[in-house]
Order: sequence, then C-alpha cells, then structure tokens
Amino acid sequence: MTPLEDLIKTFSRFPGLGKKTASRMAFHLLKADEIWVRTLGQQILEIRTRIQKCRTCGNFSEGERCEICMDPTRDQRTLCVVEQVQDLLNLQTTGEYKGLYFVLHGVIAPLDGIGPQQLGFDRLEARLKELGTDELILATNPTMEGDTTALYIQRLFSPLVPKITRLASGLPVGGDLEYADRLTLARSLKARLPLN
Amino acid sequence: MTPLEDLIKTFSRFPGLGKKTASRMAFHLLKADEIWVRTLGQQILEIRTRIQKCRTCGNFSEGERCEICMDPTRDQRTLCVVEQVQDLLNLQTTGEYKGLYFVLHGVIAPLDGIGPQQLGFDRLEARLKELGTDELILATNPTMEGDTTALYIQRLFSPLVPKITRLASGLPVGGDLEYADRLTLARSLKARLPLN
Repeated sequence: MTPLEDLIKTFSRFPGLGKKTASRMAFHLLKADEIWVRTLGQQILEIRTRIQKCRTCGNFSEGERCEICMDPTRDQRTLCVVEQVQDLLNLQTTGEYKGLYFVLHGVIAPLDGIGPQQLGFDRLEARLKELGTDELILATNPTMEGDTTALYIQRLFSPLVPKITRLASGLPVGGDLEYADRLTLARSLKARLPLN
Repeated sequence: MTPLEDLIKTFSRFPGLGKKTASRMAFHLLKADEIWVRTLGQQILEIRTRIQKCRTCGNFSEGERCEICMDPTRDQRTLCVVEQVQDLLNLQTTGEYKGLYFVLHGVIAPLDGIGPQQLGFDRLEARLKELGTDELILATNPTMEGDTTALYIQRLFSPLVPKITRLASGLPVGGDLEYADRLTLARSLKARLPLN
C-alpha cells in the first residue's frame, strides 16, 4: 500500500465516512494549503493530551475540572445526566439550563459489556451525595437504550434524590439528542416530567 | 478557543464538510483508539513529503516518476488528458486503457486566473513531441469548463497529433468523471469520437 492508500484507509475508519469521502479528503490534503495540512496533523496529534475528561462531570476540558463545574454561579443542586458531551453542549445552547451535568459517555448495553460500572454510577452517587442534589434531570436519548438507562438511574437514586425528572415532549422518539433543534430541546426541558 | 474548537474549525475547512460532521469527527478522536488517532495525525503530517506529483504526467507518486510512466509495457503513443488524479484512477479501474496519462490538476478558468500556463500546456506539448503521440484522448469532465479545456487543447495540438479524441456517450452531461461507474466509463472510452 502506498502512503496515500494508507491515509485513505485510516480516514475511512471514521464512523459514517464512506470510502469515496475518505478518498476525497485524502486527495484534498495533497492539494490544499500546506500550512492548514500541517495544522490539522499537529492538532490531531495533540488533541488527546490537551483535552481530558473533567474529573467531576466527564465533560471534555483543558484542565482537571471543566468550566461548568468550576462556575459558582450555576445552580449546584440540580444535576443533568447526558449520554455524550455533544448533548451537554447542545443543552447549553438553549440557555435554559443553569445547573450542573454528569456525562455517562454511553448507555447501558449488556451485549456490549457496558453496565453501571462502566458508566461511572459510583461516581454519580458520590457526586449526588456531595452536592445534596434536589433535582436529577435524566437527559439520555429517547431511545430504547436511553430510556432503559434513565429508568435504571431513577430506580437506583430514588432514595437519594427528592425529585428525578426526564426530558419530555418535543423530542421525536427514536431520535438523537445531538440533532434536536434549540427550540425543541428548550421546550422538552421546560416540560420535563417527574419520574418519582 | 479551546483546542477542541480549534480542531473542529480546522476539520470544517475540508470542502463539503459541514460543521456538524466536523464536530462529530473531532469528538470521535477524543474517544477512539489512541493508536489510530496518532496514526492519522502522523500520516497527515507526512503525506506531503511522501507523495509528490510525477514529473512527467502529474499523477501522485512516491518517486519522481509514477508507476504508469515507468511501465514500458504500456502503449507509449497514446496519451490521455484528465482533470484530476482521481479521474486517472477511475479510468484505470476500467482496465480498458493501456496508454499514458497527463493530469491537468484543473481546468481553464479565466475568472480564477487558471489558464494554459497554470495547467502545464507547455509540459504537455513537450511530452507529445517526446513521445511522438499518435492519439491524444481528452478525458476532461463533460462540463462547460471541461469541454472548453478539451476544445482549447484540440485546437492547440491539432498540428502536432494525428488523432485527437474525446470521451463519448455514456457520461451524463454536467456530471463528474470521478463518480461515473466502471461500465459507463468503459463504454464511453470505447465509443470515443475523433475531433479532428
């Protein structure tokens, strides 16, 4: 394999990227501005050392703790659980939520060997106790896996948290939180329903 | 801007890549296999020094001259002009063409300042004389720009080459050579029509 074929193969390992697109991207690198190409390579090499998971919430962060966790003006007694960091960022764009977050980086998936331990439910419990959380908002995706995970969390932490809610109407069932538009997301946040 | 935002911005400079896709790719790098991420960064950094343009035809190559130009079994008296290296590779997959190539890396586009000089028509002329080309196949895209470029080449080199042909029926007008399927491309190669 030539270095070009190697690069196309490496590119095509991005999820959802077809061989044609991977090939177009690799060819583009051969003709594009060399400074941009070098910047891209350098940024990819450095990203894993420059960005880490926030120690308390799992958000991506440059420091040990992320900006949201370190912001004392945010409501410390409301915690919102999301599947991915992208979901957190999408919720932030609504401007409707002023509490803290907890990022699972996944959902319960027994067939893939992902259970409560892998998702850090012990850290979540410690966090709930530390904060004395009044309301726990479950903002996992409205999918089978997301619903299951929400239900599991609700049962586990019902004794610990006075109010547990789930994002409500507005999100299309079977959809993906990451792609929800700002207004739909804001509405579902306002209309959240108590589970216990 | 954080290193993550920087990376998303850099990714979104790929043509045709929206901000959402760029963002998904950047986030994927934060969670994917670290060895793969390092490989990708390294390959991108190295690609411009490891791959160069073939001195005689413009194809991408690891050495000074590409494998096609150095292959003595290929028909040295037929030359095929294409816009992009991807077009050359696509023609190669048909298995119907055994001659040599010349890659323009573009088309005549006066508004973008791309004329005969930028496309290396002087090198093409030298090549035609050196090879004593019997047939020049013009395989630029069947678009306005591709047709104009083909016509220009035909007029310029008519006195020099006995037979100048253009890829014929099969290619949808306004389409892109890169996306043509193998059979359509093979058929259009067989049905090529003389221009002079």
